[in-house]
Amino acid sequence: MAQFNPSDHPHLRYNPLSDIWIVVSPHRAKRPWQGQVEKASSENIPRHDPKNPLCPRAERPNGQVNPDYSQTYVFDNDFPALLPGGPDPPESDDPLFRSAPAHGHCRVVCFHPWSDITLPLMDVKDIRHVVDTWISENVALGKDFEWVQIFENRGAVMGCSNPHPHCQVWACSFLPNEPAVKERTQREYFAKNGQPMLVNYLEKELIKKERLVLESTHWVWLVPYWATWPFETMLLPRRHVLRLQDLNDDEKNDLSKMLKNLLTVYDNLFETSFPYCMGWHGAPTGKYLNEDCSHWQLHAVFYPPLLRSATVKKFMVGFEMMASAQRDMTAEQSAERLRNLPLVHYKHHGS
Amino acid sequence: MAQFNPSDHPHLRYNPLSDIWIVVSPHRAKRPWQGQVEKASSENIPRHDPKNPLCPRAERPNGQVNPDYSQTYVFDNDFPALLPGGPDPPESDDPLFRSAPAHGHCRVVCFHPWSDITLPLMDVKDIRHVVDTWISENVALGKDFEWVQIFENRGAVMGCSNPHPHCQVWACSFLPNEPAVKERTQREYFAKNGQPMLVNYLEKELIKKERLVLESTHWVWLVPYWATWPFETMLLPRRHVLRLQDLNDDEKNDLSKMLKNLLTVYDNLFETSFPYCMGWHGAPTGKYLNEDCSHWQLHAVFYPPLLRSATVKKFMVGFEMMASAQRDMTAEQSAERLRNLPLVHYKHHGS
Ligand SMILES: O=P(O)(O)O[C@H]1O[C@H](CO)[C@@H](O)[C@H](O)[C@H]1O
Ligand SMILES: O=P(O)(O)O[C@H]1O[C@H](CO)[C@@H](O)[C@H](O)[C@H]1O
Repeated sequence: MAQFNPSDHPHLRYNPLSDIWIVVSPHRAKRPWQGQVEKASSENIPRHDPKNPLCPRAERPNGQVNPDYSQTYVFDNDFPALLPGGPDPPESDDPLFRSAPAHGHCRVVCFHPWSDITLPLMDVKDIRHVVDTWISENVALGKDFEWVQIFENRGAVMGCSNPHPHCQVWACSFLPNEPAVKERTQREYFAKNGQPMLVNYLEKELIKKERLVLESTHWVWLVPYWATWPFETMLLPRRHVLRLQDLNDDEKNDLSKMLKNLLTVYDNLFETSFPYCMGWHGAPTGKYLNEDCSHWQLHAVFYPPLLRSATVKKFMVGFEMMASAQRDMTAEQSAERLRNLPLVHYKHHGS
Repeated sequence: MAQFNPSDHPHLRYNPLSDIWIVVSPHRAKRPWQGQVEKASSENIPRHDPKNPLCPRAERPNGQVNPDYSQTYVFDNDFPALLPGGPDPPESDDPLFRSAPAHGHCRVVCFHPWSDITLPLMDVKDIRHVVDTWISENVALGKDFEWVQIFENRGAVMGCSNPHPHCQVWACSFLPNEPAVKERTQREYFAKNGQPMLVNYLEKELIKKERLVLESTHWVWLVPYWATWPFETMLLPRRHVLRLQDLNDDEKNDLSKMLKNLLTVYDNLFETSFPYCMGWHGAPTGKYLNEDCSHWQLHAVFYPPLLRSATVKKFMVGFEMMASAQRDMTAEQSAERLRNLPLVHYKHHGS
């Protein structure tokens, strides 16, 4: 029988952070596609639209008028999924009908006053303002809430309902499913190995090299061994860092540059404004601020849906929803494609 | 403070089958939507397209010509994600880089010779052939494989790449994530309560009534208390049944009628060919056929993406991917909307 080759033969890979298995079908990217084609992201966004509630000086649905902001701007989500106050559900005594309190605070962070710009096209110094805003939100909301989820949905295909560059912050009175699993897996790994899982992981990836995409003084961008989405990546600090607010000034500057570079690579892959969901996961906050969280390592994850081109995405549907995540190429193949892309944005070619 | 009202106040609900929590934000359906609008499903599909590899008499990519079939037709997927043979990855000794063998068999089940028909528009006796085919596939593939996932992706928005009515069967040499969790939760519940979880659950829902949508002699269609997708539902037999092949003749006939009715209700909700992923979960097969699986109860799940209309879906994106599933109305509100819809298909109105 043929020798096993991960780029040819289907296999499972284990995600030790999320405690799930991924089906890897490296041969499957070759199948023809007659399914849904997405609209490529529009390039005709006006720089300023007085009707867009995320723009400077625009009126929001609640009647407030935005200031004439020039860097980042943060406000409370006008249609929040979670509210700080309100009554709690009664204790559930039936294990099949359990509910629990859910409080929180939902905020929106505009990255820049212009609607026709995205993070990779912004100046590094303006990205640094975004990093600083993430940190101040994490600190402020982390006082009261156990989990502060910073996330960006970029692109209409990712459910983003407003083209103005922005991210969201949803603070929660509870530890949601995903971080709760990562809390458990990292705690167990630390108890067993005496080192944080992701610190160990990065050390090994720096030796193996085949999944690295970009390295800077303080950060490493890679395709995790267990990636699920076709071009899923993870951004890790080289140092052991628990939370965004623990980054030092050099690390924050370097992060701003790294974000510009990595998002440029993403845009260059299919020469389109690359859709994705990104988010930060670090040690939980609230009561956890007083606990030992050294099993945690700060990391950002990027889940982009595109698979073949600017208009054909990977659908995580029937089998994936009912059984297990599945991918159509290996993490190493994705890393190699990303690694070969230029750091100059395709929109700036020849300029 | 106001009294807690599940239709007004955000809360968490626990899914005891999948062991996760869902954020329920009942007030959030009111927010305006300026985001992506899907194409409504096309109504102009030709009944027969000799170029469509799923049609009778058409040639498939592997050169085989389909028979002139008149009911269901099953063939091996020409671009399978899993293969029966092939080499296995070496044992992994590093807990951060674990892979495992993945073998399987991927098959396609055409429901009907016509491309311009869907399950709810088919005759009950033709749906019965589909039920029988599901059963024979489960039996045949279940001999060798631990898990046989039967699933239908309906609609381009659900990644369906061919409009011809069909489902897929992916048999796996391993128990995938979702069924592995359900195996554990149902086993634990049975050990503690001496009854299968979903048998208990149905008993209680039949008394509470608020989440029931359709009842027949042998089947109940309901919105589970812990539903995630806006109009997610579950179909349960009234009797304790481990696997599709354990259904008796009456139950199979009644299931065929129930499927026609429930899918008609779905189509009538937004007067569109309703997109969804559906799948069957019953006791595992392969070596499990010789084990006591009485903690399992057969059930079908339906995950439809539409939220507000035929063209606006729920995006499970940033917060949902990074933190926790979230829904914008309660299970009871969805059940009530579905319950109020007619059993006559909107395409047959006035005919
Ligand atoms: O096999 P199909 O219908 O071409 O493909 C569809 O279903 C598969 C199983 O859920 C998914 O992996 C694919 O992403 C999706 O497009
Ligand atoms: O808040 P937005 O951007 O309008 O909404 C988007 O992100 C939210 C958080 O991931 C999701 O719940 C919505 O389904 C999505 O459309």
